[in-house]
Amino acid sequence: MDTLIERAKRGIVAPEMEAVAEAEGVTPEFIRNGVAEGSIVITRNIIRPPFTKGRLGGIKPLGIGGGLRTKINANIGTSGDNADVANELKKLKVAIESGADTVMDLSTGGDIDFIRREIIKNSTVPIGTVPIYQVVCEGILENKRLEDITPDDIFNVIERQAEDGVDFITVHCGVTLDTVRKMNNEGRLLDMVSRGGALLARWMLYSKEENPLYSEFDRLIEIAVRFDIVLSLGDGLRPGCLSDATDRGQVQETILLGELADRARRSGAQVMIEGPGHMPINQIPANILLQKRLCHNAPFYVLGPLVTDIAPGYDHITSAIGGAIAAASGADFLCYVTPSEHLSLPTVDDVREGVIASRIAAHAGDIAKGIKGAIERDNQMAKMRKLLDWEGQIMTAIDPEKARRIRSENPPAENDVCTMCASFCAIKIQKSDF
Amino acid sequence: MDTLIERAKRGIVAPEMEAVAEAEGVTPEFIRNGVAEGSIVITRNIIRPPFTKGRLGGIKPLGIGGGLRTKINANIGTSGDNADVANELKKLKVAIESGADTVMDLSTGGDIDFIRREIIKNSTVPIGTVPIYQVVCEGILENKRLEDITPDDIFNVIERQAEDGVDFITVHCGVTLDTVRKMNNEGRLLDMVSRGGALLARWMLYSKEENPLYSEFDRLIEIAVRFDIVLSLGDGLRPGCLSDATDRGQVQETILLGELADRARRSGAQVMIEGPGHMPINQIPANILLQKRLCHNAPFYVLGPLVTDIAPGYDHITSAIGGAIAAASGADFLCYVTPSEHLSLPTVDDVREGVIASRIAAHAGDIAKGIKGAIERDNQMAKMRKLLDWEGQIMTAIDPEKARRIRSENPPAENDVCTMCASFCAIKIQKSDF
Repeated sequence: MDTLIERAKRGIVAPEMEAVAEAEGVTPEFIRNGVAEGSIVITRNIIRPPFTKGRLGGIKPLGIGGGLRTKINANIGTSGDNADVANELKKLKVAIESGADTVMDLSTGGDIDFIRREIIKNSTVPIGTVPIYQVVCEGILENKRLEDITPDDIFNVIERQAEDGVDFITVHCGVTLDTVRKMNNEGRLLDMVSRGGALLARWMLYSKEENPLYSEFDRLIEIAVRFDIVLSLGDGLRPGCLSDATDRGQVQETILLGELADRARRSGAQVMIEGPGHMPINQIPANILLQKRLCHNAPFYVLGPLVTDIAPGYDHITSAIGGAIAAASGADFLCYVTPSEHLSLPTVDDVREGVIASRIAAHAGDIAKGIKGAIERDNQMAKMRKLLDWEGQIMTAIDPEKARRIRSENPPAENDVCTMCASFCAIKIQKSDF
Repeated sequence: MDTLIERAKRGIVAPEMEAVAEAEGVTPEFIRNGVAEGSIVITRNIIRPPFTKGRLGGIKPLGIGGGLRTKINANIGTSGDNADVANELKKLKVAIESGADTVMDLSTGGDIDFIRREIIKNSTVPIGTVPIYQVVCEGILENKRLEDITPDDIFNVIERQAEDGVDFITVHCGVTLDTVRKMNNEGRLLDMVSRGGALLARWMLYSKEENPLYSEFDRLIEIAVRFDIVLSLGDGLRPGCLSDATDRGQVQETILLGELADRARRSGAQVMIEGPGHMPINQIPANILLQKRLCHNAPFYVLGPLVTDIAPGYDHITSAIGGAIAAASGADFLCYVTPSEHLSLPTVDDVREGVIASRIAAHAGDIAKGIKGAIERDNQMAKMRKLLDWEGQIMTAIDPEKARRIRSENPPAENDVCTMCASFCAIKIQKSDF
């Protein structure tokens, strides 16, 4: 069976394209054209059943890319220190309820196959993974040294995850002998902060071989095409602190990812590109432009960017700032960051905070880049405020529960205002005989 | 005695300018020149004693403006519904401890004179007010109709507040018959959302007279010069929702405030300009440019901007996004917004959250606009991260207490990593024989 990109190139509007068009309020032809050109991807593994209300495991096809609403992803998953499946399923539920468009299972602890299958079974949104984590975890269990891991080990895990129904995978194909050398020659304050990137760089250092995800990229394409999953070309060389942003290693990797994206698309595989990271505000628009140009408008999936390094405990805010600017500048997909980033595996509450902060960033970005329908909800809020319709305001809010709680914890004496201004409410002053 | 601006124009470096220069790491001449040109203001009422460690009521002179670190303000104060002085003093303490550079007392409930005096007495940072609130509160107590309030009532309150030691005051001089007519002719989704602006517009509507803060602007200058307090020319016509941003009323008011700023500075009074408000991300840089150009580089004090209207409960985040972009674009002074904005008078915890979010925005902006010394702390954090020095990371954090709490609530099995990645820590992978 043809992949979506192959059908799109031949002018066929697949049912998935129609579904995305309807969800986005654009024409099916706009989606078809975007998929054909590679500026839009649709995340859904072909073995996943379609979404059916009340039945778990099926998903709605999700469009990500140019001209579409900015999407957000929530990372969940165990670590060696915290490997409680039930807790990760709670995070999945909260992430979806709070509005995550996709969820990535980044588990590195416990029974990774089981956890992933449980997450896929219980998710109504597309699921992504970073297969190299499981590759290394299994190597450790088998008492292998890192350099004893073989390309087959890597591709076997990728295949197994695809067979389970994973919809998109992060693959750090741009971490090569050349890009790592360029990074090291220039020197960095904080070296590599990508787990997958660091593992592959270490593997190359020990084995003296090229990264198989690069040297055997065609094997990756073959699996991607077979399941029509989206390859998310990871940014293993993303900067981990502001001072390392936009350095030679990072830009070199982006050039390489652009080349790989072309190869993938020519072969019928959908690709998006991952981006930084930690970055000063003033560098963000240039980075988005660079990625879009070098990767021929492939959808851009950014982690953050975090606009300062000094706010652990508040990195949902530092990344909401960067994410909003990135989205406004053209980024298509934001990976959330939670308050526990740099400190701890997130709690269920952290997941909720992270998703909401990221939704705010995405929505503010959508307004700035003129996504159809984005500002309408803000206008609706303005109307409710003018009417002093508090129930209407709460129901229009991104998190009605929290808005209601704050208002009700300190209720006003008169119901048409709030305790901030009481009778000095500016809206009320203009309506009444003050 | 000459005001700072008068001395600066004559080439004199006053002790306050030296103090600001030292705090900012710039030359006294840079400060003198900025004060003379009006691109920098120094907030300190001449009757306030200088800051002495261990003694309340004295303040360090604070510089705000071009080339200096972006400052942040925390609003506190009672409302008709919540008028507990002790609670406001707690907010003052928390605001200062969390890093607010200034605090504004916006009280509209209880004994306003008493509350303000207590706040001034207990503050180590400059205090601002919006005198029109007290004018109207006293009018209400005397059973006056709004239109019976006289210009003398207004200027008497301003004088009383200046005599108490208030360091800067918001005066909505740009809310005039002409600007309000322009706003109304164009039409708005949410009319005026400035309390002071709405009160003055209502007063003009009833009295058919011009706003005394405009028509008798020289009286205002005279008080400002006498105490050398900073006039913060309020944006009574600021947009209250995204769709009203950058409309004719708002821009007309900015033009007028620019003219008034010139008059004030010529007479020796320091001025800054207040700005929006609610605004889409893509309009923020143009608004900063417009203000700086129309007001001849007067320091720009922004409330927000809030980049979406739909996030009550999270407006510390919506305004951190807008504030960071504003600061990066040249805004000099950010007014914090708390999670309870649009819903309730803030709690003590809200004040802390608001101050930290605003500091993050200001700092991220400072890095982007190249303020000397700003990125050094981020580099220090990167070094601590590279060393896996967790105590060093916590002590470099903007809120060490919260960072420590998150890490300690979920402690790692091995002390050199965190539970997010455990043994998969990218930094550790690169340091060790993984």
